[in-house]
Amino acid sequence: MIETPYLLFLGDAPDPLAAKVAQGIRDWRPEFAIGQYRMDGCKADMKLPDMSLAEAHAKGARTLVIGVANRGGVISESWKAVLHTALEQGFDLASGLHNLLRDEIDLVETARQHGRMLHDVRVPSVKYPIANGVKRSGKRLLAVGTDCSCGKMYTTLAMEAEMRARGQKATFRATGQTGILITGGGVPLDAVIADFMAGSIEYLTPDADAGHWDLIEGQGSLFHVSYSGVTLALIHGGQPDALVICHEPTRSHMRGLPGYKLPGIEAVRDMALALARVANPACQVVGVSINTQHLFEAEATRYLAETEARLGLPTVDPFRHGAGRLVDALAAI
Amino acid sequence: MIETPYLLFLGDAPDPLAAKVAQGIRDWRPEFAIGQYRMDGCKADMKLPDMSLAEAHAKGARTLVIGVANRGGVISESWKAVLHTALEQGFDLASGLHNLLRDEIDLVETARQHGRMLHDVRVPSVKYPIANGVKRSGKRLLAVGTDCSCGKMYTTLAMEAEMRARGQKATFRATGQTGILITGGGVPLDAVIADFMAGSIEYLTPDADAGHWDLIEGQGSLFHVSYSGVTLALIHGGQPDALVICHEPTRSHMRGLPGYKLPGIEAVRDMALALARVANPACQVVGVSINTQHLFEAEATRYLAETEARLGLPTVDPFRHGAGRLVDALAAI
Repeated sequence: MIETPYLLFLGDAPDPLAAKVAQGIRDWRPEFAIGQYRMDGCKADMKLPDMSLAEAHAKGARTLVIGVANRGGVISESWKAVLHTALEQGFDLASGLHNLLRDEIDLVETARQHGRMLHDVRVPSVKYPIANGVKRSGKRLLAVGTDCSCGKMYTTLAMEAEMRARGQKATFRATGQTGILITGGGVPLDAVIADFMAGSIEYLTPDADAGHWDLIEGQGSLFHVSYSGVTLALIHGGQPDALVICHEPTRSHMRGLPGYKLPGIEAVRDMALALARVANPACQVVGVSINTQHLFEAEATRYLAETEARLGLPTVDPFRHGAGRLVDALAAI
Repeated sequence: MIETPYLLFLGDAPDPLAAKVAQGIRDWRPEFAIGQYRMDGCKADMKLPDMSLAEAHAKGARTLVIGVANRGGVISESWKAVLHTALEQGFDLASGLHNLLRDEIDLVETARQHGRMLHDVRVPSVKYPIANGVKRSGKRLLAVGTDCSCGKMYTTLAMEAEMRARGQKATFRATGQTGILITGGGVPLDAVIADFMAGSIEYLTPDADAGHWDLIEGQGSLFHVSYSGVTLALIHGGQPDALVICHEPTRSHMRGLPGYKLPGIEAVRDMALALARVANPACQVVGVSINTQHLFEAEATRYLAETEARLGLPTVDPFRHGAGRLVDALAAI
């Protein structure tokens, strides 16, 4: 686990989108976000107090999280002076970039000298077991998508926030680097060795109280030929009691696959449910989450209503309208 | 390349299935298998001459192949004395286990002292791409199973032998350590990083002549919760034109999963075909391969006939009766 709270490093972010990791932390774990650190020319702003390293450390920050990605996901040389100073002043560093902190010899040496940790959340830090398929206590929900990057993380985080607001026991379980940085822990599933994928998800979602829900962040899609195996490992390792189907309705083709059309929500519902019942015969599809960010309000409202009427399942955009109806649907499980 | 011929190390195999590496080499490259080395309590027998290390070396064996796997694929401490002695007596070691020979410091040191090689065929030697899903030329067949270890490798190897005997162009494509040890090349799929699984299979089965068949070794099962993700990556990376369903009819539960019953052949046929058609809409199920090794001849014959009548597909045990009818069925694709 990454030590909290954080100081969010926005570096020289060329635009607000580059800081989506920082934004995720601010939106979903504001209590972890003590402040932000911006360099000259930074175009992102989390509306958090700008702080020096010393100020943030004095206020309790223990990890400097690289909340920004530049082209190629590398660790910019222009950041290095700040990163070294942070280690010297008692911060750990955490990063989800492709290029690893641990491969930067100078950072490794400074961390060693000052007894600090370098967290590269893209690479597993645990030797995961092979899945044993044994039924675990507690309840689990998994977000499955018609495609990659269609709102699965957002949906499960929004459900967690809603359930906690209602006083229900719920834990978002991160399976990708952004989710791991937001919550401080999880499994970077796309970097796990094939044989241990399902086992890593069993490890991620252990036995829990009968009334507790693990809300598992989905990855990929059963219909995305590049990553479908990762998705199926989530379905079988997660042994979900409930599925939410996530969809972004304006895509002309699968992400990164120009030759592949998106499947219908019904096709994903049927395929995911049939496969989920191998691990958990009681699994149910409880709702549909539509990412309507590219639709105007009236279009979004109509699309949601039509989808709900067609599928007979609560259908919402949790960003626009909240996750309340998806959470309501869990009561029947 | 691994130096041949081999002495097959069966160790303390807990059951015959655990020695499927050794059995594959004996059946498909018998000229490589000089003898077998068994320890006390070994429950596997390749019907090869039992030999000491010194005898085998005198008969020309140059590599001790670890032909046995225990759960988790570790190098058992109880094997170590034999492995050290083998290195001292002039053998290289070859292994397809998850835990690597190269990570055993004592073995590395003994190999270094005696100038011997440690071959870990499991470790990917290629940086595989992410799958792009683009249609490739040539034809592909994939073996999919109701369970792990039910005859998928045998089926595709037998089909390759039959097709070559008929003068047809066919290439067995290994996706596991046994197949790699047998044929000298392939993708150790269960050791590939999750994001690159499907891409590794695209890499394994590149564009080919229109009349050429790649016969892709299957792994796991869509219904085996520990490994199903690996199976789906094969289905989507392989983009098969043809599927053969493989089944072993005497299992009381899924291999390694006491709580899980085997799916029916029909369930696997329907699920695998639906998923395969995401990548290749023309995919067909062409036959059923039954592993009848635990049935008497009359039972086997009856089971095959009943299955064939029920499914309306050529149904054979290629090990017992040849793969001719499966190969015949490809003519229609």
